[in-house]
Amino acid sequence: MSMVTVYSTKNCPYCRMAKAFLDKQGVTYTAIDVGVDAVAAQKMITLSGQRGVPVITVDDEIIVGFDSRRLNELFGTPATTDTYDVLIVGAGPAGLTAGVYCARKLLKTLIVSENIGGQALESWAIENYMGYRMVTGEDLMKKFEEQVRTLDVRLELIRVSGIVQAEGIFEVTTASGALLKAKSLILTQGKQPKKLGVSEEEKYLGRGLSICSTCDGPLYKEKKVAIVGGGNSAVQTAIEMSGIASSVSLIVRSTIKADPVYLKKLEEIKNITVHQHSQITGLSGDQFLDQITIKTEGQPDQNIGVDGVFIEIGWTPNTEILDGLVDLNDLGEIIVDVDGKTSRAGVFAAGDVTSVKSKQIIIAAGDGAKAALEAYEYLMKTR
Amino acid sequence: MSMVTVYSTKNCPYCRMAKAFLDKQGVTYTAIDVGVDAVAAQKMITLSGQRGVPVITVDDEIIVGFDSRRLNELFGTPATTDTYDVLIVGAGPAGLTAGVYCARKLLKTLIVSENIGGQALESWAIENYMGYRMVTGEDLMKKFEEQVRTLDVRLELIRVSGIVQAEGIFEVTTASGALLKAKSLILTQGKQPKKLGVSEEEKYLGRGLSICSTCDGPLYKEKKVAIVGGGNSAVQTAIEMSGIASSVSLIVRSTIKADPVYLKKLEEIKNITVHQHSQITGLSGDQFLDQITIKTEGQPDQNIGVDGVFIEIGWTPNTEILDGLVDLNDLGEIIVDVDGKTSRAGVFAAGDVTSVKSKQIIIAAGDGAKAALEAYEYLMKTR
Repeated sequence: MSMVTVYSTKNCPYCRMAKAFLDKQGVTYTAIDVGVDAVAAQKMITLSGQRGVPVITVDDEIIVGFDSRRLNELFGTPATTDTYDVLIVGAGPAGLTAGVYCARKLLKTLIVSENIGGQALESWAIENYMGYRMVTGEDLMKKFEEQVRTLDVRLELIRVSGIVQAEGIFEVTTASGALLKAKSLILTQGKQPKKLGVSEEEKYLGRGLSICSTCDGPLYKEKKVAIVGGGNSAVQTAIEMSGIASSVSLIVRSTIKADPVYLKKLEEIKNITVHQHSQITGLSGDQFLDQITIKTEGQPDQNIGVDGVFIEIGWTPNTEILDGLVDLNDLGEIIVDVDGKTSRAGVFAAGDVTSVKSKQIIIAAGDGAKAALEAYEYLMKTR
Repeated sequence: MSMVTVYSTKNCPYCRMAKAFLDKQGVTYTAIDVGVDAVAAQKMITLSGQRGVPVITVDDEIIVGFDSRRLNELFGTPATTDTYDVLIVGAGPAGLTAGVYCARKLLKTLIVSENIGGQALESWAIENYMGYRMVTGEDLMKKFEEQVRTLDVRLELIRVSGIVQAEGIFEVTTASGALLKAKSLILTQGKQPKKLGVSEEEKYLGRGLSICSTCDGPLYKEKKVAIVGGGNSAVQTAIEMSGIASSVSLIVRSTIKADPVYLKKLEEIKNITVHQHSQITGLSGDQFLDQITIKTEGQPDQNIGVDGVFIEIGWTPNTEILDGLVDLNDLGEIIVDVDGKTSRAGVFAAGDVTSVKSKQIIIAAGDGAKAALEAYEYLMKTR
């Protein structure tokens, strides 16, 4: 039996998913909270050569991040060869809601996703999900997941690599090489963060550069950080990090475009410096990032010493796997009608991956329900 | 000062709204729970000549139901003459969610509605609102309402009677004669129950015939009832009433079209008799309904003794007040695009009143958020 250790922080959803995956597969492991144990944190950084959680060691192998493909190779169960009524790609608010609605219609349902909760996991404090005056993305997604788990839905944590339609059946291939079959599809695979587009960006990812402040934020206690972006997410992250880090630089390409409620809070916080009309042009540091260079309009370049940078500059829809399956708009989003139908019969979509303009948890959930009910109607008609 | 008495039952949302209205206006009243106090129940039935709650007595006047127009005449405060950024018609899941989103955008927001919670109030047990494995419609709508009340939103309980656009401003008239003005509109006024279409239907409304099983159900303990309809609502009502009434007849025009989960439950319950391919052709009884006549395909007419009949046969969208303001579909529903825009600039819509096919709380809430965010964008552009 392998010796498995999971280095994690308390609020990191990817850590929780990694542990949930290992639990499900009956793997015994040692869990270490590096948000509390500074010695273990240093050991993790030395072992993995980076400063991001989770890190999982399996005997001599070091797995950085929740690498569902590698974990499946090591510990996964072989996929089933059944044909499902519905295969849902993605398990964020849209996919989980679609799962609940499909299961209540007694459809044979499979959800395939790299993670559970999607982008909703990144939200620190949600005040606009109806029914909860205040909830963290992590807690809300746990509730969604529990609601799915009470029903007869199969949930596989694995990345989809391609989808084709052959003789009326949709064939979905996964990164682990499995072939899954379904009579209809609900696409809810969301979007992923955009990159800064500066040299050495890949080098510093996990070495000071982070795309998940919820995960890695606790590792920057009393350190200097920068947040890149000017929307709600960036401002929210700046506000939250101002309570953890010693100082926060908010670097905004043009001007801040956040909700007035966040702007009000931002104005009240003293350890946040806002740099508008600015962008990062360089990253530097030996093994870890320790300085950024920013260019502000009409001013000479400026170096700022930072231990961490959190990127919050927007998203790209996860539609590259579709390869012409359905029509996309100019932004690469799946075009849907008012009921969640795509350009192809039998394929429905919901959530951040679609052409619906506003990206919100409650909107993704509502549209996930629409897609499921449309899929049900489609199956009733074609059976 | 008037002597005011409110006769109500514990789970009746209209009773709660009537009391909330009186509380808000600082009116002192005596509250009597006729679900517990059988003597008072008889007194209420004698006084009002009917068997439905709430009944409110104001000195010698007897007000049957939550008659917001009459209560506003007696106790209301005069309406404001301000121009709002957004006026939301309706306060069900869609309207309340839109209210939260508008308020968070710091828009000057007014919600005008006959009731709070809309059709969601009629649901006994909701298992498909994400975030709650099980919640009553009443409890969920209380949470929605509380979420609105924490924000700066004005909520008026009054019926809208007409809407016109004059020089870019929308003018909304109410049943109490007030004129309200707004720069944009969000229409979420829902739908209302269809009628049976038999003679003497009006006579027996509140005298054995009910359109709100959540409200009037408790008054039929150990009595014989019939439910009319074959969808999810009818089957849910039959299941719930089977635990209160001595016997339940479920009268279905064609065949039952409910979710399989409800069908399973229905099969397990012994005091429910299902009459498919059947409809009510006559109502009879002296002061109160005591018998229905049903016609089943290929069989002679049949008389069934019942104390109460609950109508659950579908809905008509509340669009008669619009009078050409926006385009409607064949069902009389407001045609919306994928982001909640209607055919008229500045007018947005969400929830059961729209052309979105599936009518669900989570869908109405999601679409309410979309409409609010579109209204915000519209106001930013036209300011």
